[in-house]
Amino acid sequence: MSLDKIKVIAFDADDTLWENEPIFKSAIEAFCSLMAPYGAAEQCEQGLYAVQMKNLPLYGYGIKAFTLSLIEAAMTLSNHQVSQRTVSEIMDIGQFMLEADNPILPGVKQTLEALTQNYRLVMATKGDLLDQERKLIRSGLEGYFHHIEIMSNKFSSNYKKLVTHLDLAPDAFLMVGNSVKSDVLPVLDIGGHAVHIPFHTTWEHEHAEIPSAHAQFRSLNDISELLPLLGV
Amino acid sequence: MSLDKIKVIAFDADDTLWENEPIFKSAIEAFCSLMAPYGAAEQCEQGLYAVQMKNLPLYGYGIKAFTLSLIEAAMTLSNHQVSQRTVSEIMDIGQFMLEADNPILPGVKQTLEALTQNYRLVMATKGDLLDQERKLIRSGLEGYFHHIEIMSNKFSSNYKKLVTHLDLAPDAFLMVGNSVKSDVLPVLDIGGHAVHIPFHTTWEHEHAEIPSAHAQFRSLNDISELLPLLGV
Repeated sequence: MSLDKIKVIAFDADDTLWENEPIFKSAIEAFCSLMAPYGAAEQCEQGLYAVQMKNLPLYGYGIKAFTLSLIEAAMTLSNHQVSQRTVSEIMDIGQFMLEADNPILPGVKQTLEALTQNYRLVMATKGDLLDQERKLIRSGLEGYFHHIEIMSNKFSSNYKKLVTHLDLAPDAFLMVGNSVKSDVLPVLDIGGHAVHIPFHTTWEHEHAEIPSAHAQFRSLNDISELLPLLGV
Repeated sequence: MSLDKIKVIAFDADDTLWENEPIFKSAIEAFCSLMAPYGAAEQCEQGLYAVQMKNLPLYGYGIKAFTLSLIEAAMTLSNHQVSQRTVSEIMDIGQFMLEADNPILPGVKQTLEALTQNYRLVMATKGDLLDQERKLIRSGLEGYFHHIEIMSNKFSSNYKKLVTHLDLAPDAFLMVGNSVKSDVLPVLDIGGHAVHIPFHTTWEHEHAEIPSAHAQFRSLNDISELLPLLGV
């Protein structure tokens, strides 16, 4: 891909800069243990996912949305038999998630440090405003970013707005992230560049086919491979 | 106040551009009816407010945060005696709120229409990203705004970032809103201008003393009074 024109590099945050999905995985495990009297773990996970998908247009992403879906799923899965104590325990799972640490992924700090010399860096993430701001502040990475964009969705239209807001031609924009569906396909769609860095675990909702060959797309194993790719 | 330097006018959204607090008031009434077996309405409202204030740093603003606090308050107020059906009914209150209409306040459209000829207009609101975007799109007012800022908080530091982001001197910035605490005091604090337009009902958390006399502050009865104030 021709990378000469790139001026702005935007990074997804969850599972690109820091671990996040493992917190959700653990929460789902804890939830399905609480739900064990009403069915097998697999059934619980499927029931929860169905509730999450139903609520997505109304609730959006993030831990508060997830917690509300946990409570609703508990009612559905138990046929309203779940105890009030269990409801309180489910609320505690949500609060625990909000306070959990998101460890920075290997190579992130050094890569941002090197790239910030030559590019304007942006963080572009979905999710809850307050959650994402809190994670960013805790991460100590805030100083590397020229702009923080917290998006309700990562559709092509959202990226188009971002690129316009940054006063950029689409091919001056490179997006880096772990989700093909959210960080790659919509960016290629508007004429931007995209780098996919897979994380070991991906939420079912974010699954998508990797583009087979595209002049503006690359897949890397590790964020630090961005430096040789960009000749930094 | 000397208004000649003003280039950007930012508007709070909830209860400044459209009705919002009445939706919360109705929800609290509905909730306290459900809680009637466990105590008087006044006690219920106080208990709920205490839970909301405890959760504010973790949950932030918005309807999802409010719904989670309703459920927690139901557990506390009923000493975990509240039925599972009631928990589901409380979740329904939250979903109903997310889908509720927010009627545009009188004079808003005409005022924005007139101001947009001479100023850059910004919407600056607290709350949930997805909720606020949804309300804006439904309102049909989106086209008047050059920039939309959805903020996790409205502290001086948040306004300082906004003014920097807009590449403005603080005294080129005028904030218009119904909350003295969120829309007036922090803006005066950073050297901006502020106009207070009271709404007939204000959330307890937003109460603050109106500044007695300040060169960069004015109180108006109605948004359309902005036009003669600014000589438009």
